Amino acid sequence: MSIQVAYLGPEGTYAEKAAWELSRLENIDRPTLVPCIGLRSAIEHVATNLCDAAVVPIENSVEGGVTSTLDALWSYPQLFINRALVLPIKHCLLSTGSLNEISEVLSHPQALAQCNEWLSQNLPNALQLPTNSTAEAARMVQGSKFRAAIASRASTNLEGLNELAFPINDVPGNRTRFVLLKTKESQKKGDIASIAFSLHSNVPGALLQALSAIGNLGLNMSRIESRPSKRELGEYVFFVDVDLKNCDDNVHNQLMKALMPLCEHLISFGSYSNTELNIG
Amino acid sequence: MSIQVAYLGPEGTYAEKAAWELSRLENIDRPTLVPCIGLRSAIEHVATNLCDAAVVPIENSVEGGVTSTLDALWSYPQLFINRALVLPIKHCLLSTGSLNEISEVLSHPQALAQCNEWLSQNLPNALQLPTNSTAEAARMVQGSKFRAAIASRASTNLEGLNELAFPINDVPGNRTRFVLLKTKESQKKGDIASIAFSLHSNVPGALLQALSAIGNLGLNMSRIESRPSKRELGEYVFFVDVDLKNCDDNVHNQLMKALMPLCEHLISFGSYSNTELNIG
Repeated sequence: MSIQVAYLGPEGTYAEKAAWELSRLENIDRPTLVPCIGLRSAIEHVATNLCDAAVVPIENSVEGGVTSTLDALWSYPQLFINRALVLPIKHCLLSTGSLNEISEVLSHPQALAQCNEWLSQNLPNALQLPTNSTAEAARMVQGSKFRAAIASRASTNLEGLNELAFPINDVPGNRTRFVLLKTKESQKKGDIASIAFSLHSNVPGALLQALSAIGNLGLNMSRIESRPSKRELGEYVFFVDVDLKNCDDNVHNQLMKALMPLCEHLISFGSYSNTELNIG
Repeated sequence: MSIQVAYLGPEGTYAEKAAWELSRLENIDRPTLVPCIGLRSAIEHVATNLCDAAVVPIENSVEGGVTSTLDALWSYPQLFINRALVLPIKHCLLSTGSLNEISEVLSHPQALAQCNEWLSQNLPNALQLPTNSTAEAARMVQGSKFRAAIASRASTNLEGLNELAFPINDVPGNRTRFVLLKTKESQKKGDIASIAFSLHSNVPGALLQALSAIGNLGLNMSRIESRPSKRELGEYVFFVDVDLKNCDDNVHNQLMKALMPLCEHLISFGSYSNTELNIG
């Protein structure tokens, strides 16, 4: 039976591209890609075993952590990251009409934010309308001369759509990290370990203690991200990536043991390797 | 001349309520409130002296840091926080029609996210359409029986709109912290100091060093938030709040001196006091 991989649909999203690439890297033979509405839904599909895996974005170099992904990971501690992939994001402006006719620009809020400067210089009066995905935006502007979508170049395949400008993202090095999630830990040890933890509240310096425990093992954090606990303003959940390159095999266990007494909740998402893709 | 206070408009937003309250707390006599389109625009109004002050949300207990505010603060280091206010957020569903007729729900993306569970239980098939503000959503649903808005209860004042449900936010303790920004530092010392810094890249353990410097002064962090530097995936800017209660007057200077050599860039937003409002 074919391996089912959930992702943020519809077809044509950057997540779909990442899902194909990650499946290839994980030697998944002829995966069945299952488009989901919303990131949380994609993650639920793997957490509840409706799918074998899910591919979701976790951070973008311009917009930062993808909060829906982080919040869903915290609520499904049974998940493991099996592999990460960094994809260059180059946005394209697509329409049936021409640039001087456009009065509305549609896209996912993160894509609109990533093209904010370009839009204010080139389409200062156009209304910006958010959609659920870049690919949905491309579908919604088909047939209207006054509407344009910000989407991946792949969407120029859609009937009637032309490329009006490319690339239009404000930061040329715009990149997004996607992760492949499963309910089983990757069998190969990787270069990165991802953990998440909450701290005992009202313990002054609790975060410093936790980070010192990581430092004392000679480990370097490559990423730290805080999210609200959603219980109380000022209570946080921390997502930390630790660099395991050139480290002893046992260090991951040592890390969990050192952190356990300092944390209220502690989740390990396993260790995994990261691939950087450089395509146009 | 009346003091001009920029805020995320239009009239009827939570930010407007915060702007009135913060002006009152700061003894600003009869302020002129200037509604702006977008948080960045409100912050630009004070940074470029078009207005005397700006009131913007900085963090929410459910959705976390307000990324547009944090990114704008990093790009305008001349700004100081003069006062903070925590406002309870209670969302209301408003419409001309009745609940069983609603096929579209409009609101600001953060408000839609904060009512996600309520919507999936009570209006599972309704399309969710994002808008620029909650107050804008309320205006856009006037006159349509099939559309509802998520907004503050104040918007029931708008003609033709009825309250269909209240409160509908998933977390009862939903609260947002707003800050009043000026280009001048507050003359009174406050309980909280806010700073932001970026670190020298490729220095392992640089974040741990900076946080240790804070801990070594006997100071506790009440908040830490990371944002991407927007230059490179994996490079961050950190926003830290430090608790100054019961501290020596000089500790703020000591903090800046201790952090300076460890940081690439270091910004102080000054020290200020925080008020918690408990209204319905």
